[in-house]
Amino acid sequence: MNKQQHLKILKIGGKILENELEFGTVAQTFANWENPKILVHGGGRKASTVAKRLGITPKMHEGRRITDDATLEVVTMVYAGWMNKKAVSHLQALGCNALGLSGADLNSIQAHKRIVESIDYGWAGDINAINTKALLPLLQLAITPVFCAITHDNKGQLLNTNADTIAAYLATALATFYTVQLHYCLDKAGVLLDAADDTSLIEQINPESYKKYKLEGIIAGGMLPKLDNAFAALDAGVSEVVLSGVDNLGKGTKIRTKYNR
Amino acid sequence: MNKQQHLKILKIGGKILENELEFGTVAQTFANWENPKILVHGGGRKASTVAKRLGITPKMHEGRRITDDATLEVVTMVYAGWMNKKAVSHLQALGCNALGLSGADLNSIQAHKRIVESIDYGWAGDINAINTKALLPLLQLAITPVFCAITHDNKGQLLNTNADTIAAYLATALATFYTVQLHYCLDKAGVLLDAADDTSLIEQINPESYKKYKLEGIIAGGMLPKLDNAFAALDAGVSEVVLSGVDNLGKGTKIRTKYNR
Repeated sequence: MNKQQHLKILKIGGKILENELEFGTVAQTFANWENPKILVHGGGRKASTVAKRLGITPKMHEGRRITDDATLEVVTMVYAGWMNKKAVSHLQALGCNALGLSGADLNSIQAHKRIVESIDYGWAGDINAINTKALLPLLQLAITPVFCAITHDNKGQLLNTNADTIAAYLATALATFYTVQLHYCLDKAGVLLDAADDTSLIEQINPESYKKYKLEGIIAGGMLPKLDNAFAALDAGVSEVVLSGVDNLGKGTKIRTKYNR
Repeated sequence: MNKQQHLKILKIGGKILENELEFGTVAQTFANWENPKILVHGGGRKASTVAKRLGITPKMHEGRRITDDATLEVVTMVYAGWMNKKAVSHLQALGCNALGLSGADLNSIQAHKRIVESIDYGWAGDINAINTKALLPLLQLAITPVFCAITHDNKGQLLNTNADTIAAYLATALATFYTVQLHYCLDKAGVLLDAADDTSLIEQINPESYKKYKLEGIIAGGMLPKLDNAFAALDAGVSEVVLSGVDNLGKGTKIRTKYNR
């Protein structure tokens, strides 16, 4: 294993995956990326639609889904079934040797039911470990893992796990073996000086400039947890986090520590 | 590759997979089997239930499902999502290194939309080829593929394919590399002299005795296509076909050609 070898991990939301045109664009760019690479996808909107049609009311708490038995069945069907296989089939057609995975497959992501404090999130899974021993042979075979947001506890229980978190855990676990670039595909072209202007892209952010942008109120709201998570991934060994959009995938805002500019 | 190495392929119906007690028994026996091995599962009943709850009326023609767009989405969700991941997670808990696959994953089973003659089956897929080049490295890594009844055309279209057929195609394609034993898990202990008596098991059938049993009317009805398919698999290079039940898995009726008794 040569730590100089680069690995790209891309996380896309369910909203992009559901939009044929947008996913087509993203999939083409991703298929063109050199191996090794990993795709991670969400699928929350579609799950809510299917749940509603099945007469199950989605229960949310602070933006997180509460996963009861019926909801676990729906999210597993939607994420690991329809969304994952659609993505895999599309990528295969583009010549990318995709392999759909949940955390149960090859015990690739072991998790535990989220500890109950003020609220029971049901079958929500917090990650224990990424099984790099299972993933490395796949990457060496030029196979492209396509992860959905389902994990398991390795005792037979499937669990619902946030796709952003899966991408970050994969990135940090595989940073022992590869120089990892972690990509998040957003609605916008990246982090913008003016949220309404896609051309006002900030090309690079480091810890110093992040402090400055926060003080000036340029970076605020929903972008703050994204950037905090990005810096946490960098602290954990990931080389670069890139926030970009569908049309400029991989070429948006690059987030780096001051040490590896 | 040593053709003397044995490979076991087990096909189970969705009915067994949905029954926690029955699947628990089957999974334990299967997990104890030596590698390499492959599981193939159906899931038709559950798909019909989910389709009905979503307001989609299952359309059947001579026992085969007609797969329109909405039905394809349902069967992919149910087979590749819920049923497949349940099975994989259960097997992993038993120490079997299961990997859920559709034919789209690794382009492992390429199919084409069934040619329309008197009736259009919609997104029903007839198999072109098993990608043994993709499967052999997995088997060599002691990974256990768990196939659901979804394939694709390698142009981005998912297809619904009969699980019995998938098992038979896998068996014949892999017979070039392994001595293959193909197992079908049935409602009954195997082929019975008296359909009402599970102890009246016929332990072995060859082409000669099959003729005799047919003439005597002992083997009739739904068992005929099963045995015809078994003999076709033997003709195509499979070493043995075994029809057994949940409780005597692998120890039911052994179907062999007269040449390899």
